[in-house]
Amino acid sequence: MHFTTDAISQLDKHFRTHLINSLSGFKSANLIGTQDSAGNTNLAIVSSVIHLGAHPPLVGMIMRPHSVPRHTFENILATGVYTINQVNSEIVEQAHQTSARYDKNESEFDATGLTTEYLANFSAPFVAQSRLKYAVKFVEHQHLAVNGTELVIGEIIDLHVEDSAILEDGFIDIESINTVTISGLDSYHKTHAITRLPYAKKPR
Amino acid sequence: MHFTTDAISQLDKHFRTHLINSLSGFKSANLIGTQDSAGNTNLAIVSSVIHLGAHPPLVGMIMRPHSVPRHTFENILATGVYTINQVNSEIVEQAHQTSARYDKNESEFDATGLTTEYLANFSAPFVAQSRLKYAVKFVEHQHLAVNGTELVIGEIIDLHVEDSAILEDGFIDIESINTVTISGLDSYHKTHAITRLPYAKKPR
Repeated sequence: MHFTTDAISQLDKHFRTHLINSLSGFKSANLIGTQDSAGNTNLAIVSSVIHLGAHPPLVGMIMRPHSVPRHTFENILATGVYTINQVNSEIVEQAHQTSARYDKNESEFDATGLTTEYLANFSAPFVAQSRLKYAVKFVEHQHLAVNGTELVIGEIIDLHVEDSAILEDGFIDIESINTVTISGLDSYHKTHAITRLPYAKKPR
Repeated sequence: MHFTTDAISQLDKHFRTHLINSLSGFKSANLIGTQDSAGNTNLAIVSSVIHLGAHPPLVGMIMRPHSVPRHTFENILATGVYTINQVNSEIVEQAHQTSARYDKNESEFDATGLTTEYLANFSAPFVAQSRLKYAVKFVEHQHLAVNGTELVIGEIIDLHVEDSAILEDGFIDIESINTVTISGLDSYHKTHAITRLPYAKKPR
């Protein structure tokens, strides 16, 4: 099956949204915890969290300021802090439900049955049910003029993860804590490890 | 287990690289096909491809100009075109091997046994063994001064995918074509679908 540029541009809008969202491959599944300056909590599922670097430890995510997670972006700008909480298979439905259009004064924690947790004096809320989560300090955002989105960059401050998932070399076995992955807009998947491969070298 | 900022900064460098690379969650697995202006082909595995938007159809990836995929970035700047090819479970080892430090005049296609394929008059090479692949026209790169990486943004031009994987609503069942996902630096995973969830609405 071959779709040309013209064919893509003429697709029905919803069909095209599903199609194009499938192309990047599997995506990360994370809940972003924030609060506003009055302490009202907010939680939003995001599939665009991406590793930016380990030295310093940086994480990025793409935000669409005019779509649902806009309260998240506003809270990050107002307070400078947020949490990232991996979604596991036990909380997929609650996590997905955070994408509904709740008002700014409604907390997605209360609405979905996920539980706020405050750890190590960090002011943004964590998700108690998440098994790998970290505190993030906002660094900067870069506006992507090409489509009006924002790349939000943060530094990883404090990491909370189940002991047993950390292997000897520092790799975290996120499959063992049931972390899920997303494809397209709305499909959730468990994983089964195939292999870990050694650092690739050119044969002599 | 709780790692503070200080604890993270004092970790052994390799341990820390594995640890921090695990935090974003599951990553996409794609091969980037390019050629230089003399027609020498290049292929590099990248785990940072990310959906940026469907209208227009845009895709991003993070490149580290001073690490292995630097030839890829140079070729994109020189020619303005590249291909993105999803990695499936049949080609995991060859795909991973493209991350070795080959010289600029050595093609990772030849070195790993993956096959070049030219489709619809597009000048960058596709991977014949990939079952979902698309032609991309370079749009721009944004320098992330915070750690010297580049966000490379491209427009999706031409899509090639197996017919049977496209569902009625446009969603592509990438699990059915054995697309894999990556965790950390070097762990490859198959997936098993849990559920597709409807567009979330606030209960009345």
